[in-house]
Parts: sequence; structure tokens; C-alpha cells
Amino acid sequence: MKVICGKEELIRGIQIVSPVTPSKNTLPALSNFLFETERNKIKLSFTDLEVAVQCYIKGEIIEDGGITIPSKKFADIIKELSADNEIEIKSDETNQINVKSGRSKFNLMGISKTEYPVIPEPPEKNSFKIKREIFASMLKKTGFAASRDSQRYVLNGVYFVLRDGKLEIVATDGRRLAYVKTDVTQAEIKGRAIVPTKAVNDILRLLSLDIKSENIKISIADNRISVEIDDITMLSTLVEGVFPNYEQVIPKKLDLKIKLNVKNALTAVKQMALLTDNRLSSDRSSAVKFYFSQDLLKISASSAGIGSGETELEIEYKNDPAEINFNPNFIKEILQNIDEDLAIFEFSNSLNPAVISPETDENYFCVVMPMRV
Amino acid sequence: MKVICGKEELIRGIQIVSPVTPSKNTLPALSNFLFETERNKIKLSFTDLEVAVQCYIKGEIIEDGGITIPSKKFADIIKELSADNEIEIKSDETNQINVKSGRSKFNLMGISKTEYPVIPEPPEKNSFKIKREIFASMLKKTGFAASRDSQRYVLNGVYFVLRDGKLEIVATDGRRLAYVKTDVTQAEIKGRAIVPTKAVNDILRLLSLDIKSENIKISIADNRISVEIDDITMLSTLVEGVFPNYEQVIPKKLDLKIKLNVKNALTAVKQMALLTDNRLSSDRSSAVKFYFSQDLLKISASSAGIGSGETELEIEYKNDPAEINFNPNFIKEILQNIDEDLAIFEFSNSLNPAVISPETDENYFCVVMPMRV
Repeated sequence: MKVICGKEELIRGIQIVSPVTPSKNTLPALSNFLFETERNKIKLSFTDLEVAVQCYIKGEIIEDGGITIPSKKFADIIKELSADNEIEIKSDETNQINVKSGRSKFNLMGISKTEYPVIPEPPEKNSFKIKREIFASMLKKTGFAASRDSQRYVLNGVYFVLRDGKLEIVATDGRRLAYVKTDVTQAEIKGRAIVPTKAVNDILRLLSLDIKSENIKISIADNRISVEIDDITMLSTLVEGVFPNYEQVIPKKLDLKIKLNVKNALTAVKQMALLTDNRLSSDRSSAVKFYFSQDLLKISASSAGIGSGETELEIEYKNDPAEINFNPNFIKEILQNIDEDLAIFEFSNSLNPAVISPETDENYFCVVMPMRV
Repeated sequence: MKVICGKEELIRGIQIVSPVTPSKNTLPALSNFLFETERNKIKLSFTDLEVAVQCYIKGEIIEDGGITIPSKKFADIIKELSADNEIEIKSDETNQINVKSGRSKFNLMGISKTEYPVIPEPPEKNSFKIKREIFASMLKKTGFAASRDSQRYVLNGVYFVLRDGKLEIVATDGRRLAYVKTDVTQAEIKGRAIVPTKAVNDILRLLSLDIKSENIKISIADNRISVEIDDITMLSTLVEGVFPNYEQVIPKKLDLKIKLNVKNALTAVKQMALLTDNRLSSDRSSAVKFYFSQDLLKISASSAGIGSGETELEIEYKNDPAEINFNPNFIKEILQNIDEDLAIFEFSNSLNPAVISPETDENYFCVVMPMRV
């Protein structure tokens, strides 16, 4: 193989095929990415057998072929090259990789392309289009609530439900749940899929790159999800298993309903979180207390080793005084994901879940269990 | 004690008394800083018994007194407060610290000011003034060459020599040496002092803050160095011991002298450093080779596990071909500290030290031992 391409284009390609989460797999070829020519284009591919990413970059092809290249070392070398010179990349039957740029020459050892895992084609059926920004926002608004406990593997991702012309995305760790919904034009498609957190992070990484298209194509089939945008394709295996019946966790009716200024509430919770001791996850020391009384919400925290604090927010509240305790990080993450000025906070008592949602957007809400202290 | 001050002023004070290197000392009071009133000002002090920093901040003093405050937690709280409200800080005889701002109140446990180590006054004798920028630049240009090997404690700092109206600063780890010199107007002062790397880092940190004065006052006496700028005083104990006779390490005469374009040479060395294996510190794999021939410098590297590379620089060189090998990081750090376009590279053979200096500035040079491969 022999190709010539520009530094910027090469850096972009390397960035696309560098996954967020390093692979735990120790197969030597998996520290490499695949660099090959395909139909007069240069194709870069990476897989760790769970997530795979492919993209095309521009360049002049002098001789067809392919080789797998050590990702980290190659990226480091390309970064140090001058942007003024074209870069020539060559490989031979001994799997030597030659990189030439200006007066600099490099020689790295590759691994034969035949030893690289075959990346399956993205599923062609069961696909829909969605706006890039909306999809990214939906993943952010739910992903934070997914479980990080690898024992609860069905919760280690976000759950996609496609039905009635809508895409619903849900994530929960058992103590909080985030739900978001949007219309999709392909009303006929149906499906359910648990997309692993690792793939969610990689999708968000791709969508944050400098990308032209406003729309992405998503397919869910054959136990895989594929995301296609511009000339980039990402493919991930799904989490196998049954996502719990989250609908029964969502409270049907809550008696108390309060409007909160999101910015002020977030500041208050962040301040009080500093007085909690999060090493003690089930103790009163790790909770912030919400105390509602006549038109006033007092938020407070106290832990023996650190100290105590309280702050107040003016609210509209006419009911009997009520108290409810939360893990402050749960409330922080929810409020950070509400992009309106006002949030609605609903609860019934100190033992049952509360619901937080934006004032006007009916397609997003979070459920959060109180702490029993 | 009871004082009122602004958020910005408090943040500045906390920043000044937060040292670069966390203390290894486990005395509880040393995780705190001292907050006290002094002659109608608020004074903040910190010491870890090696380095001490003091500064004054503006504020309204309602009741005199002092308390030591947990540094990290206090800083976190102040950062979360609104800049619109004044902050009231109060302590009582039970060592409770009350912080009030707007509708937020905090209560932290302090430690009595009587338990805080007494910070000595800065030495008044043997002092000189120096421009802030010059002093910072001298520390940067030498500090990188100090030894990080705690066994060689006399080399764990930079050596100040005051004589003949000049300040010389030297640092070495036995394999490289950096030397810089400047005039000081107080020609009569004399002294020698090893300033520990930890203090060097803290001085550089202070000098990088938003500071008004162009000049700083330095005193070296009583086994201490003090640095005074604006209303900030830093004090450090010196390294005890005798700095080696560095003058005998500096080559008197070198046969070969080559001009290098600093930017191009730095790029070349950075590129080739990627092909070295720095886990093998005495092996050929960890060296970059400089090969001089007719008007050409070839820089190359090769290591079994990674690969090989070479690049070329055009130079003026008419002598016999010559080769010399270096630790690439040593050359990188030296070239990064040369702020002229051209550097002079002098050497005699592959076994003896080379000297690198800026083309015109006679007050700065570095000596570097080659690697024997």
C-alpha cells in the first residue's frame, strides 16, 4: 500500500477511530487501527469487538492495500509533523509501515490486515433519521442516570424504545431514572435495545466532532446499533437482557408541585453538597435536606467531620411543612440537564420518589428516590 | 473575630496561600491556613514548616481575632458563593467558623490559632531587588535541570550565588546543568544558597499571579530565603549541604561549534523522541543520535519494540563526520528554554559534555552529558 495525504485530514481520521474507553482486550491487533484503501479512498477502521468505528479520509492512492497501525504511536508521530508537508504512508509484505514527511522518515511495525477482526456491515433494516443535536441532547439527558455497577449489566446503558412514531430513551440505576422522548418520522419502525454506556460515550464523542450533516441515520437490528453520519459509521453490540419495567417506577400522581428557579436551586444544592460526606452513601451525612414551608424552601446539610450549612430559596408553597432528603449529586445532575429557567419539582412525601422536569418541555423528566435518613 | 470581605478578594488570598506541593506533614493544623486580623487588615498565612506564604486582603474588620480554617473545604465553599454578596466570616472561642453570604450560612470546625506554627519574620539583611520577569525567567531556565532524586538532596534545588554584583543561578542533576546570570544593583551583597525545588515552584506560582509590582525583594540569610512582592511574603528554608563544584563540569573549550535553528531542532528532537523507549534509561533505545556531516545534521532514533526514524537539519559544518547521542528529553528541555531563534551547539566528541546556549545571550547556557551507547 502507498498513499499520500494531508496532516489535518489524517488527524481527523485518527481522532474518529480513537474510542473513549480503552479496550480491555489484550489481542495485540486491537491496539492498532486498520488503514486501507477502498474504492479510491482511504478507510480507517477501529474495533474492540464491542464498538467499531469507520471513516474515510481524502488522499492520493498510489498503490492499493492495507495494514494495521499502532494507534497511539502513529497519532503521536503525525501530531509532530509539519502541516506544510504532505505525508506519505507505505506498507509492504513484511508489515513495515513507512511514514515520510518533509525530511523526516519513520518506520513502525504493523500487523497484517488479515489479523484484524472483520467489522460487520451496519444493519440496513429498521433504520430512522434524527437530527444530530436532538439525538446528542437525548443521550446527555439520560446517560448520566445509567448504572455504573457492572453487576447490574442490563442497567449499564440507555434503553431505546421505538414505538408509535416515537423514540423514547430511558436510563436508571435503580435510585433515579431519566426519560426523554421525541418524534421520529418513520412511524412504522419498532424496536427495543439497551445501548451500552460505552457506545453512548462514543456516539457523543463523534457527534461533538466537526461534522457537516445535520441528520444522522440510526439502525437497530441483529443485536446491533449503527450510527451513520457524514462518512463515519459507528457500530456497537447491544446489552443482552431485559430492561426492567421502568414504567411502574414512574409515579402516576404526586400531591405537591413546586416551581424552582433552576440556576438558584443548582447553586443551593452545590453549596450544600460541600457539607455532605459522600463516603457514607446511606448515612444522613451524605444527604441534603429539602424543607418546604410557607413560600420557602430551606436546603441544608450537616456531617460530623465537615460542618453544616443551610440556604433558602423563595418558592410558591402553601401546604403543610414537608421534608425530603436526597443524594445531592442526583439533584445536581438532573438540574444540570434542564435547559429551561424553571423546573417543576413534584413529590408526595419523604419516602416516595420525586419527579423533576422542565417547566414546559413535556418530553423530559427525571425520577429520583429520596434518601431515608 | 468577625470580618466582611468580597468573594474575589478572598479567592485571591486563598490562591496565594495554597502551595503547589501538598505537605507530607500530618499535623492537623497544617491542612488549615491561618485567617486573622492585623492592624486593620485581614492576613492569610500558610506554612508546611518548609515553605510559608503570607498575604493581606481587603475587608471590613468588625472584631479582631484569628482562626485556622480547613483550606480545601473553605476554598470550595467560597467558590460556590455568589460574587454579588459580601461574605461575613466569624469565629468564636469554640473554634466554630461561620460563613454567611446572601441567604447561605455555613458552619465549619476550625483549629485555634494558638496551635498554628509561628511563621518567622523574613530576614531583613542581605537583600536585593530584582525585576519580577527576569527572576521568573531565571528560575524557569535552570529549575528543570535540578535533580528529582531525593537521595541527592543537595541537587534537589537551584543554587544561588551572589558575588561581584551578580546573581548566578545553577541547577544540575549530574547529567545536565543549567546556568544563568544577571546583574544586581546591590553589588556589596554576597551569599550562597540552595533553594529547594518546592520553593522554586511556589515562587513561580506566585509570580504568575496577577501582581502589580515590577520588582521583587529577595533576602537570603539565617538559612532562609524570602521573596516579597506587593503585600505577599514567601519564606522557605534552604537545602542544607554543600552544592558540588559545578564550575569544573563546565567545559573550557570545545572544538566544534554549530548554529541550530531552535524551532526546527526542537521539532526534530521531539519527532525522534517518539521512537525512543524511555523505560530503558541507559540503553541505545533511549537515545537520539546526532550525526554531523558536511552541512547536514541527521537526527535519528531506533528501538526494538517501537520502530525507527530519522530526520535532517541543514547546518553549517565543514569538519569530519561526528556522532553524539543524547537523552532526547534533556535536549528538548534545553531548547524549550532558549528564547532566541538560533542556538549554539558546541561539543568535542561523543564522550564529553556538549554545551547549548542562545546565539547572543551570554548569560545563559546548559551543559549536557552525552549517552554512551
